[in-house]
Amino acid sequence: MPMPLDHADLRRRVSGALESMLVRQKTLLTGISPDLAPLADALTAFLDGGKRLRPAFAYWGWRGAGGEDGPEIVRAVAALEWVQACALIHDDVMDGSDTRRGQPAMHRRFEAHHRAAGWRGDPANFGTAVAILLGDTSLIWADDMLNTSGLPPEALLRAQPVYDEMRTEIMAGQYLDLLTQVTADSTVERAMTVVRYKSAKYTIERPLHFGAALAGAPAELTAAYSAYGLPLGEAFQLRDDVLGVFGDPAETGKPAGDDIREGKRTVLIAKALARATEAEAALVETHLGDPQLGPGGVDAVREVISTSGALAETEKLIAELTDRALTALHSDLIAPGAADVLRELAVAATARRV
Amino acid sequence: MPMPLDHADLRRRVSGALESMLVRQKTLLTGISPDLAPLADALTAFLDGGKRLRPAFAYWGWRGAGGEDGPEIVRAVAALEWVQACALIHDDVMDGSDTRRGQPAMHRRFEAHHRAAGWRGDPANFGTAVAILLGDTSLIWADDMLNTSGLPPEALLRAQPVYDEMRTEIMAGQYLDLLTQVTADSTVERAMTVVRYKSAKYTIERPLHFGAALAGAPAELTAAYSAYGLPLGEAFQLRDDVLGVFGDPAETGKPAGDDIREGKRTVLIAKALARATEAEAALVETHLGDPQLGPGGVDAVREVISTSGALAETEKLIAELTDRALTALHSDLIAPGAADVLRELAVAATARRV
Repeated sequence: MPMPLDHADLRRRVSGALESMLVRQKTLLTGISPDLAPLADALTAFLDGGKRLRPAFAYWGWRGAGGEDGPEIVRAVAALEWVQACALIHDDVMDGSDTRRGQPAMHRRFEAHHRAAGWRGDPANFGTAVAILLGDTSLIWADDMLNTSGLPPEALLRAQPVYDEMRTEIMAGQYLDLLTQVTADSTVERAMTVVRYKSAKYTIERPLHFGAALAGAPAELTAAYSAYGLPLGEAFQLRDDVLGVFGDPAETGKPAGDDIREGKRTVLIAKALARATEAEAALVETHLGDPQLGPGGVDAVREVISTSGALAETEKLIAELTDRALTALHSDLIAPGAADVLRELAVAATARRV
Repeated sequence: MPMPLDHADLRRRVSGALESMLVRQKTLLTGISPDLAPLADALTAFLDGGKRLRPAFAYWGWRGAGGEDGPEIVRAVAALEWVQACALIHDDVMDGSDTRRGQPAMHRRFEAHHRAAGWRGDPANFGTAVAILLGDTSLIWADDMLNTSGLPPEALLRAQPVYDEMRTEIMAGQYLDLLTQVTADSTVERAMTVVRYKSAKYTIERPLHFGAALAGAPAELTAAYSAYGLPLGEAFQLRDDVLGVFGDPAETGKPAGDDIREGKRTVLIAKALARATEAEAALVETHLGDPQLGPGGVDAVREVISTSGALAETEKLIAELTDRALTALHSDLIAPGAADVLRELAVAATARRV
């Protein structure tokens, strides 16, 4: 994703903060036992691949509320990268995904480790167990990162409700997503609820609120951030859904059409099923969630999504939602410099990339 | 486990605090979607079964440091019950355990839910996925409970390092435990490291430190709590190991000999292997980790543990460690009333119960 220049700078600083923290944690872990070094190494490699999108929205949420730049706020927003690491590591276990960010998923990494070492027991079980632990560890280290950021206690306590609620919402969204898969609920309405809680609020709106709360912003600014963040978050997730079906593996870090193989009932799929003929819908239902689906099957599903008009409708919705988000940035409550970066981030996060 | 009278009272108050919090969280979840009610219900049922041991040590750590009683500290220490819920729910997934606290393990509960509803996909995968999410949710709600306790921000921030380090240590201990199983490392030394990090520090020493840090206690008191908490924590876990092999299912909430079936390489097992004849050791190795092991096999392993002298040696070690813990309570840094309860808790946590 092409990012505005200021974002590239912030990204480097967030990465630097994460690296310092990992060095400290590795020292703590290897002090307990040298056998724990692989845990720190695996998380270091995993964290390296993140786009720092949530920290960026949190940082500009802080700046937009009049907060000053400094290493403390960079460390505080970097905590969100750990929350995201937990979500992704556990999500991959739940979905049985093989890859993440172009590398083996965490559970596959430790499965391979077990196999190479010739240990006892089932390598896949070991991989799953370690990935569960490392997701938990990521969630714990998020707190650690936030609480050792150097921001004053009252700022941290002020942000805690939104931080806790955000994380509960992610779990709620994940569960609704699971439920959608197992009940084969293909309504657009349900898919939109999942988008909202699993992704939209959590990627953009809540990080903005988090930064605003750290800065002690008034409720009016929080509302302005919602008016920008909610539609943008939905547009961002819809873009992600399109990429999950039509995206270039070099960019997504996942095999082409992986969302189809995983059976994700996205808004894009829901729209296609609603608009397709009976025969086309049956074809989609047959292929959706087939882990062995080959390129021919992926192409057939893509075809239905395109010809049914679902793709065009989704692109139109992305454009409308992005427009709505950009309009909300005209609020004079948001500090002008921050509004400029938020405008660039909105465009970068939702741009067509096929 | 028989508990001192003051503990019974604290236990009720901790349970009350957890219940209020669950009511609030259920409202939040069902506000997102009524489909989320089963998550809150499952956690309510799970939390109901806890012994409130960690909250008790944290509470008396606070009182021993001169902290006053009040609803705020009760809410703050109740957070540890959520940390424990995460550890147990995820531990049961990792071990593939069927039961917990006499009920189906969380992943089995949702597996059954999936099956009863006749949903799509693999019921076991669904159960695992939901249990992963609910463990994560528990970890998040621990923070929520702590941060909404009403204790002042500086007290919360003071306790954060020990809270974070405690949770990282649990994960470290869990990983070392996994490693011990897959490498079949049966040295007593390794088993003691696992005891220390997976259980001893986390059950007693760290909760005491947590309470002390909330109260702003001096380093000398923290050291006194370690002198009591570390040996007691080890004794507590060794008692748990003995119960895992010889315990009454009605008390443990697990089938008899479940630790043998799960292949746990406890200190008790390590001692038995070190002292047994070659033939006896081979017998133990054959049965250890056999999920289908019947009552006859369980009895055969018990026999080796007894006749090798490992059981008597472990009982002796438990008594020595408990004595050491009780001696440390003579420190005049610990407020007298608190020292009395800590003495009773030590006896209750390590008493022979076969």
